[in-house]
Amino acid sequence: MGNDGTRVVVLGVGLHPFGRFPEKSMSDLGRTAALEAMKDAGVSYNDIQAGYCGRVVASTGVGLNIFEELGSTGIPVTNVELACASSSRAAEFAATAIKAGVHDMCMVVGVEKMPRGMLDLGQSGGGGMSFAGAMGLALLPGEYAMQARRHMALHGSKREHFAQVSVKAHKNGCLNPYAQYQVPLSLEEVMNSRMVADPITLYQCCPTSDGASAVVLCSEETARRYTTKPVYLTVSMGATPIYTPGEVQLSEGPTAWLAQRVYEKAGLGSEDVDVAQCHDAFTPGEVLTVEKLGFCKEGEGGVFVWEGNTEITGKKPMNTDGGLLSRGHPMGATGGAMITEIVRQLRGQAGPRQVANARVGMIHNAGVGGIQLSILTT
Amino acid sequence: MGNDGTRVVVLGVGLHPFGRFPEKSMSDLGRTAALEAMKDAGVSYNDIQAGYCGRVVASTGVGLNIFEELGSTGIPVTNVELACASSSRAAEFAATAIKAGVHDMCMVVGVEKMPRGMLDLGQSGGGGMSFAGAMGLALLPGEYAMQARRHMALHGSKREHFAQVSVKAHKNGCLNPYAQYQVPLSLEEVMNSRMVADPITLYQCCPTSDGASAVVLCSEETARRYTTKPVYLTVSMGATPIYTPGEVQLSEGPTAWLAQRVYEKAGLGSEDVDVAQCHDAFTPGEVLTVEKLGFCKEGEGGVFVWEGNTEITGKKPMNTDGGLLSRGHPMGATGGAMITEIVRQLRGQAGPRQVANARVGMIHNAGVGGIQLSILTT
Repeated sequence: MGNDGTRVVVLGVGLHPFGRFPEKSMSDLGRTAALEAMKDAGVSYNDIQAGYCGRVVASTGVGLNIFEELGSTGIPVTNVELACASSSRAAEFAATAIKAGVHDMCMVVGVEKMPRGMLDLGQSGGGGMSFAGAMGLALLPGEYAMQARRHMALHGSKREHFAQVSVKAHKNGCLNPYAQYQVPLSLEEVMNSRMVADPITLYQCCPTSDGASAVVLCSEETARRYTTKPVYLTVSMGATPIYTPGEVQLSEGPTAWLAQRVYEKAGLGSEDVDVAQCHDAFTPGEVLTVEKLGFCKEGEGGVFVWEGNTEITGKKPMNTDGGLLSRGHPMGATGGAMITEIVRQLRGQAGPRQVANARVGMIHNAGVGGIQLSILTT
Repeated sequence: MGNDGTRVVVLGVGLHPFGRFPEKSMSDLGRTAALEAMKDAGVSYNDIQAGYCGRVVASTGVGLNIFEELGSTGIPVTNVELACASSSRAAEFAATAIKAGVHDMCMVVGVEKMPRGMLDLGQSGGGGMSFAGAMGLALLPGEYAMQARRHMALHGSKREHFAQVSVKAHKNGCLNPYAQYQVPLSLEEVMNSRMVADPITLYQCCPTSDGASAVVLCSEETARRYTTKPVYLTVSMGATPIYTPGEVQLSEGPTAWLAQRVYEKAGLGSEDVDVAQCHDAFTPGEVLTVEKLGFCKEGEGGVFVWEGNTEITGKKPMNTDGGLLSRGHPMGATGGAMITEIVRQLRGQAGPRQVANARVGMIHNAGVGGIQLSILTT
């Protein structure tokens, strides 16, 4: 988003619980989240001027159906898709439209019912496979495992460092009534679960989830009619993975570079971040991301996590809602769920998961196709 | 787009020929269109700051792959999906980002390899079907046929009025080397082809197509470095079909309402439009749209077309490139192809299809999920 001009407020957030809901349609899931977000914002559907649907696997009609069933107001509705970061990118688009004066209040609904079984997102459909897909890298446990192995080789990280991410995630998930898993896991349970892609065991992989999220955004001026304690979407920017010969950068490639740009634009530094959400689809995600976001030095991510710094009571609380590992990861819904948790944290509404005095929140949402970094502030 | 501030220029346009290309991947198609558009714009891939991919049936990786193979610059790439209007909506998003100062130069690539056989876009995937889908309305020949029958009943339109749309489309397609069909069809051939959904015969349906389009957009200020004759994307706005009890409005519902808003924002009227593209996926599309855009009175669309007013030499030349019926309709690529033709017309580069003194062009792009109306000016 532009540096100046209209500031954008996240006025309302909502979720449908994450889990498995074979009896529900995508519209059922999306509608529930949308109604919760509009109630949270204090607005009605007639106030919404544009809709954005973040979804990946769902077919074209899904986004329209969700909004259509909320009301027949004729507002433009668009599906925005960027794999796991779909609804984060959609929120940037909504904020951009607000900044450009195109719309004044928008709603992003993220939704997914993940297909069961293996998912190869690199496959291009209608002929041909991507380079990454052909190399097996689009099978994501493999990609994350390679990053973990590299980290172990270069920096001496240990298997338990990665496993600890899942232990902490499930501890937090127990505090979140919307989480798919609300059961604790011990380090032994995580490490002894079935090996998927060494060093990643089964319980270090996010589950197959159904769920939905919704976010209502508006201009600062409009927000004044609804709240005296706005949470701002201060910056939201994206980038695409860069494959550099001789480097294993993969989806984490541009994160550090983008983080610098995001901090600059927000006029903040990594030391200012009180609470963060990162893309822990697999446990190495958190270990690598704490480094890229500048929460610790390069190579120290494993120890940083192991020592409890990303716990709710730690220096840099991360994935306070259980993250993708425990809250769940219905792809299109994940970005909006991250925004939802950060907004609740910054409002002081996170209940047993509340981080003390949280005023600056950061979101790292990565996926095949790109990453999105956002900073929210009170 | 906002009424004031930065004006947005369509700096370059490009296509991959439309047709059937089983041996080519989506990346092959998209890359060809993108390279043509960048050459047309006089820019290199390093100048592009954001990518948008309009595609519908393709899987998540497609958009990324196309841009990634053009260069590993790390720019954000997002899939924007709105059925047949995907790349038109993506162009609005790109223009909005330019207006908001987020990006200065963007490229939209639209691409599709249409699956063979029947396509039910109303089906929501993962459980449940839309209301329209359940009513059979998402099978589009049925929807357009109902609109045609209603027009015949209310306004006395005749079968040959609709058929004439296809005759004219194929006549224009013969003048377009990128068109899927470059063969003339007589009125008798169109009317005597196999009945699909009365009164729509086979040759009144757009074909199953593969193809790609690309559009480079930038701010007016940047455009000055590349051209002294810019074509502006003056307005681009969307809306969603409204189902009103007792009315058969379907996807054409909000068109007249949106057209008024678009004309107002552009400071123009229907009388100012020199050349137009409309969504003639089925022949009733053009008959209905000339009315909704104000080119003729309500109910007179059939006669308006029959009398040759939408011919290249007529009062309101429409679908000068052959339209969806003859140029072809690879869904994600269609909006960009419409922009491409209008830009070529406004630049005076349309060769044998050139409309004399074309200075204002209009685009109507409809689909399951929404419509997009755009006005381009010199």
